[in-house]
Amino acid sequence: METMNGQLNRKLRMALVGGGQGSFIGRVHSIAACLDNRAELVAGALSSNPEKAKASAPAYDIKPDRAYGSIEELVEKELALPEDQRIDFISIATPNFTHFSIAKTAVEAGFNVICDKPMTFDLAQAEELKSLVEKSGVVFAVSHNYTGYPLVRMAREMILNGEFGEIQAVRSNYIQGWLRSRLEEEDQKQAAWRTDPAKSGAAGAFGDIATHAYNLGRYMTGLLPAEISCNLKIFAPGRQLDDYGHAVIRFQNGAMGTVTASQISHGRENDLFIEVDGTKGALAWRQEEPNQMIVRRNGQPHSIYTRDPNAPFMNESGAAACRLPAGHPEAFFEAFANIYRSAFDAMINRISGQPFEPKNTIYPNVYDGVEGMFFIQQSVASSQENGAWLPFQCESARS
Amino acid sequence: METMNGQLNRKLRMALVGGGQGSFIGRVHSIAACLDNRAELVAGALSSNPEKAKASAPAYDIKPDRAYGSIEELVEKELALPEDQRIDFISIATPNFTHFSIAKTAVEAGFNVICDKPMTFDLAQAEELKSLVEKSGVVFAVSHNYTGYPLVRMAREMILNGEFGEIQAVRSNYIQGWLRSRLEEEDQKQAAWRTDPAKSGAAGAFGDIATHAYNLGRYMTGLLPAEISCNLKIFAPGRQLDDYGHAVIRFQNGAMGTVTASQISHGRENDLFIEVDGTKGALAWRQEEPNQMIVRRNGQPHSIYTRDPNAPFMNESGAAACRLPAGHPEAFFEAFANIYRSAFDAMINRISGQPFEPKNTIYPNVYDGVEGMFFIQQSVASSQENGAWLPFQCESARS
Amino acid sequence: METMNGQLNRKLRMALVGGGQGSFIGRVHSIAACLDNRAELVAGALSSNPEKAKASAPAYDIKPDRAYGSIEELVEKELALPEDQRIDFISIATPNFTHFSIAKTAVEAGFNVICDKPMTFDLAQAEELKSLVEKSGVVFAVSHNYTGYPLVRMAREMILNGEFGEIQAVRSNYIQGWLRSRLEEEDQKQAAWRTDPAKSGAAGAFGDIATHAYNLGRYMTGLLPAEISCNLKIFAPGRQLDDYGHAVIRFQNGAMGTVTASQISHGRENDLFIEVDGTKGALAWRQEEPNQMIVRRNGQPHSIYTRDPNAPFMNESGAAACRLPAGHPEAFFEAFANIYRSAFDAMINRISGQPFEPKNTIYPNVYDGVEGMFFIQQSVASSQENGAWLPFQCESARS
Amino acid sequence: METMNGQLNRKLRMALVGGGQGSFIGRVHSIAACLDNRAELVAGALSSNPEKAKASAPAYDIKPDRAYGSIEELVEKELALPEDQRIDFISIATPNFTHFSIAKTAVEAGFNVICDKPMTFDLAQAEELKSLVEKSGVVFAVSHNYTGYPLVRMAREMILNGEFGEIQAVRSNYIQGWLRSRLEEEDQKQAAWRTDPAKSGAAGAFGDIATHAYNLGRYMTGLLPAEISCNLKIFAPGRQLDDYGHAVIRFQNGAMGTVTASQISHGRENDLFIEVDGTKGALAWRQEEPNQMIVRRNGQPHSIYTRDPNAPFMNESGAAACRLPAGHPEAFFEAFANIYRSAFDAMINRISGQPFEPKNTIYPNVYDGVEGMFFIQQSVASSQENGAWLPFQCESARS
Repeated sequence: METMNGQLNRKLRMALVGGGQGSFIGRVHSIAACLDNRAELVAGALSSNPEKAKASAPAYDIKPDRAYGSIEELVEKELALPEDQRIDFISIATPNFTHFSIAKTAVEAGFNVICDKPMTFDLAQAEELKSLVEKSGVVFAVSHNYTGYPLVRMAREMILNGEFGEIQAVRSNYIQGWLRSRLEEEDQKQAAWRTDPAKSGAAGAFGDIATHAYNLGRYMTGLLPAEISCNLKIFAPGRQLDDYGHAVIRFQNGAMGTVTASQISHGRENDLFIEVDGTKGALAWRQEEPNQMIVRRNGQPHSIYTRDPNAPFMNESGAAACRLPAGHPEAFFEAFANIYRSAFDAMINRISGQPFEPKNTIYPNVYDGVEGMFFIQQSVASSQENGAWLPFQCESARS
Repeated sequence: METMNGQLNRKLRMALVGGGQGSFIGRVHSIAACLDNRAELVAGALSSNPEKAKASAPAYDIKPDRAYGSIEELVEKELALPEDQRIDFISIATPNFTHFSIAKTAVEAGFNVICDKPMTFDLAQAEELKSLVEKSGVVFAVSHNYTGYPLVRMAREMILNGEFGEIQAVRSNYIQGWLRSRLEEEDQKQAAWRTDPAKSGAAGAFGDIATHAYNLGRYMTGLLPAEISCNLKIFAPGRQLDDYGHAVIRFQNGAMGTVTASQISHGRENDLFIEVDGTKGALAWRQEEPNQMIVRRNGQPHSIYTRDPNAPFMNESGAAACRLPAGHPEAFFEAFANIYRSAFDAMINRISGQPFEPKNTIYPNVYDGVEGMFFIQQSVASSQENGAWLPFQCESARS
Repeated sequence: METMNGQLNRKLRMALVGGGQGSFIGRVHSIAACLDNRAELVAGALSSNPEKAKASAPAYDIKPDRAYGSIEELVEKELALPEDQRIDFISIATPNFTHFSIAKTAVEAGFNVICDKPMTFDLAQAEELKSLVEKSGVVFAVSHNYTGYPLVRMAREMILNGEFGEIQAVRSNYIQGWLRSRLEEEDQKQAAWRTDPAKSGAAGAFGDIATHAYNLGRYMTGLLPAEISCNLKIFAPGRQLDDYGHAVIRFQNGAMGTVTASQISHGRENDLFIEVDGTKGALAWRQEEPNQMIVRRNGQPHSIYTRDPNAPFMNESGAAACRLPAGHPEAFFEAFANIYRSAFDAMINRISGQPFEPKNTIYPNVYDGVEGMFFIQQSVASSQENGAWLPFQCESARS
Repeated sequence: METMNGQLNRKLRMALVGGGQGSFIGRVHSIAACLDNRAELVAGALSSNPEKAKASAPAYDIKPDRAYGSIEELVEKELALPEDQRIDFISIATPNFTHFSIAKTAVEAGFNVICDKPMTFDLAQAEELKSLVEKSGVVFAVSHNYTGYPLVRMAREMILNGEFGEIQAVRSNYIQGWLRSRLEEEDQKQAAWRTDPAKSGAAGAFGDIATHAYNLGRYMTGLLPAEISCNLKIFAPGRQLDDYGHAVIRFQNGAMGTVTASQISHGRENDLFIEVDGTKGALAWRQEEPNQMIVRRNGQPHSIYTRDPNAPFMNESGAAACRLPAGHPEAFFEAFANIYRSAFDAMINRISGQPFEPKNTIYPNVYDGVEGMFFIQQSVASSQENGAWLPFQCESARS
């Protein structure tokens, strides 16, 4: 297990933007970043309300003089610090509509970034951000955190190695129930911004969770999309954004993909599950039971691959993402931490003046962020055109 | 548990068409029909090859003089028998392309019929058959056997009673793997006719299994369809009919349905599963584990309803479909037998000169058969038009 | 699939003793016996109350002249019939305390017998019955029906073939909840006799269900027992027989077995499950999900063996016990029917004057019945002696 | 979610004893202790080999001057530090045989302690340690980490509140397979000391894992034991300590408990599972799927309680142990961290001069440690006396 940062010989210093009271994801970022003892949270702009920003700092053990009132202040004051105190990276855990300007400010100042998904408010912002990242050369990760699960990474390596043959079908689903009723009317902060087109963007469920489901299939299989047809629904009366939807995707190799997202399915918690069919085998994985994956091949007993870093069947990507032996379950925090762990490796390379792969990274990056925004844009557009097939070749996509 | 046929005071007499050597479904029909000791198999036209028809009879304990060489011979000779020996009903267990002429002959002769699905080769035949059934007044059941599972019937009653509120989403899937390779090239009789457009009809997987998945959702929810968009695929090189496909259905009440069918998913056996989302609750059921159904409601623990005929939570339809107490699993044969059981009740009414409901029956009937053929026709047509939305209001549909 | 009885060329004729109104198991016997169309129920002594015996006959489609008032009448009148009408075997589905005299009468008259378990009221009766069976040469099966599941038979063949190495631990459990409250006080016939020492014998839960659990382990592994220590409990106040209990068994090869039985575990239905540990592998099987078995080997993914008669991994015993392809679940009735199927093969041999194996049969037999009674006797005795180790080498046991 | 330590207004300072290269549990302690950002690891005696102790420090980010070579050095030098730098607590993550002297040194110096289980090498040490803790007044927790799972704590509160009625049966199992072969011969450090009586103590599997299983039942139910009967086995040829065993426990209220532990069950990873039967309900929980618990009550659908801190059904103990909303799985690290979290609350009270409950704590404590050693001692003694019933009333036990 890694702990320190090799030749760097110190912890990486983190700033958190967002994460003030009422935030769920800010805490996740700080725990995930620090889990391996490779980083410490030293600064923050925890709220767009400067007073609340200050007040939230003690809960993160952030010193008062580094509890800033805005990203601008954060960047300015951190740049003014000696290099050996200055932060190394900024984690963005704010509502969607603010991601772009925060990320832009951070990237232009040369800070590495871990940004929540969807990466921006719309595709144009995403494309611009991609250019900025390319220009600045920072490490930029996007928190498609479900790609951090060891068995997801094992599956990806197996698929890319051809162990399942040609991939022909991908069924990716993300089913929740928490927005069954109009929580956004009940002063529930999470629900409020996610259902508000001014803050969430063009899509509701499709922006919030279908992007994860789509990304998971893309990440696992490497299949490149060609066309998309989508139908979105609003089932909760009066809501402004989709709370249910379904897309069909034609991949360039002829495979068929389906993405289903729901926020109105009673009792479903965070049920991201995926099935992949290849000519040589098929797999199924479910986020709520992340320590096992089912692999099936005709004529053989079904195989349950457990997250076992010491097993002969575990491949390198999978093993590298484990922290505990088999039977000692790992879960959400550890997967999230694996995004950080992989991004940290790239950051250390950058800090040390060594090259690092920018595009086909083990962690989701700015190109995946662009593709996610493209997915949202084309899904919404197709739905508005009665489910018409729209082109969906994303130039920026990872291979 | 029923055993005898009430006022009729005798077993019903059955003839089987199809079911010769190599047939899987013929044996299922005979076991299912006789399971409750309410019917006996006394006659058959077990093969279209007269010699094979004779040769197959002993395995069913059919006497040589009632082992006929064709449906025509069967009808002619049975009609010539005294009424107290003559068969009461004919079960049709032949490949799709022969259903219509057999069923027509049987119905016109006044025999009750249990017919395999899909009911006919095409929609025109189905419509004609419906008219013939209406004219003759026979009992006509279609073997959408999965509707016979006790928990499916319980779910239907719960939904129709409003226990799940307004239904908004239905996700119905039927995933198999047995046609992953081109078994039809290897002298496998089942595979051969099912992949042959001249015998199976316009669709492959969509005719063979998506019809079941669609029917299951319709049966459970009672939702009426409005439009359908479908995309079919042939993944096994050289195959003539779809082995994978996906349809989106808009129901008249605004609900969204999806139907996915696959015959190329490694290791998947007969995995019909359905999820239904309503405003007051959601359910999930899986054919391969038929003795339990999951019901979820926000804010409550998830509920596993087991097939327990004595439990307070079990409703009338569910209990009536059980033969064993909880924990003593029931399965495929018993569900299939429940189609017979329900059809027998109608037959006894008919034989006794009493009225019986022709359309909204507990068992799948000729109207469901017509709707199934309409589903296949519009799915194929939509797929040929690149997934265009096509009208899908079926006039004959049960409510 | 078998249907007719080979060279015998006719159905076997069955008489049922017990099974009158309120009986659950009588109906199971008749359905199981007739499932494959190899037998027909033609006679019965359905109740010890002659009037009720007559009244129950129509529900089984037994003709009035063969609805007898007692086993004595049944035997006498059947023996008086011409051989080509006379019954071939008698199924005994009555409370425990009556098994012996019924079976004795049947066996001495030369009829084959299928007898419910536990086989007799006490061990002395069991030993005597064994001698009678040996003398008469009839086929005698005991309805340890859970041994009829295809995957149980597959497991047995795998274990006996050494695929799991030396067996070192067997954990067998049978957990129910239906006697949580004192149903026997509420005019529930099943509960009444099972909790009455005069009718059930020396044990309650241990006689009713622990015998199944013990038998399942013995059947699967072939391990021979050496010693037993047992502790029984009565948790429902006022009950006379154990409703919970636990035994530890030392097998002759040094393996350790545990048997746990409960009838007071809320919500547990019929949860017979077993785990077997060998030096080369381990397996787990659960009766409520009988179509799958989990096989584990260190360093390999866990394997789910499904009941797939066509799979390369399915062995001969397993395949022979299947009636349906994979994914079309089989369950309780079919397993029960497999006891009949195997016993029928022996009966046909006997009727045809051919030899048949009496002891190490694929179906549970009179020797297993004796061992079951020995298990009950020693369990109760050990419990009365505060869990002392008692000898448990059963001379009559199958190898 | 807690982060800082209330009125204390600083992180607690931790020292780790053990955890050098090859250690699994040392890393778990450091991650668990720091997960909530309430503590920081500042000192260590990471190995009994002083050089290795120094060499292991960087991996934990421990400064060289606080990387000590022994517990004695650690205590001496830390006591010499100013109070505002000195450690607050010592975590002991060494093999069993060293726990006592380390803990004694720590406790006598007035440091709070988190000690691995089993707490000591034998019962006499445990009793002495208990006295020392009582005298010194330190906070002393024992890492029966499985009690930290939110659903375990929810279950405990439900049971102690009487929601399951009187508890009558507890079946607790801990099944592993990793010691199937003699890993201890292959230079596997974990296996080596655990199978060595000089280092592990009187028991192998029973000391290592059965103690957890026993403790889990005790913690959940609060039942007090009266007598124990145990049978231990060594299945791996040449091994010196039990690798399989089984105990039966009579509780003072008349309930029956069983504890089964195995380290030789192929493919079983870390399968701790428990079933509890009460007069009003029953529950089942499995460590490998810790985010759900099954609750059953006769006549009701089975209930799956998920770890949902916001659900109406979640009680206070359960909710307080959660860090993430439902569907975002939590696992091993978080449960372990909950032991720390609860102990930290007590430490803060102690540091602040406020009283704290010493015995009936939410975290496992020195009294549980004593009971665990008593469990091991009586299990081994009973097994040596052929499974005789031995008294098992532990005077020190929590109520």
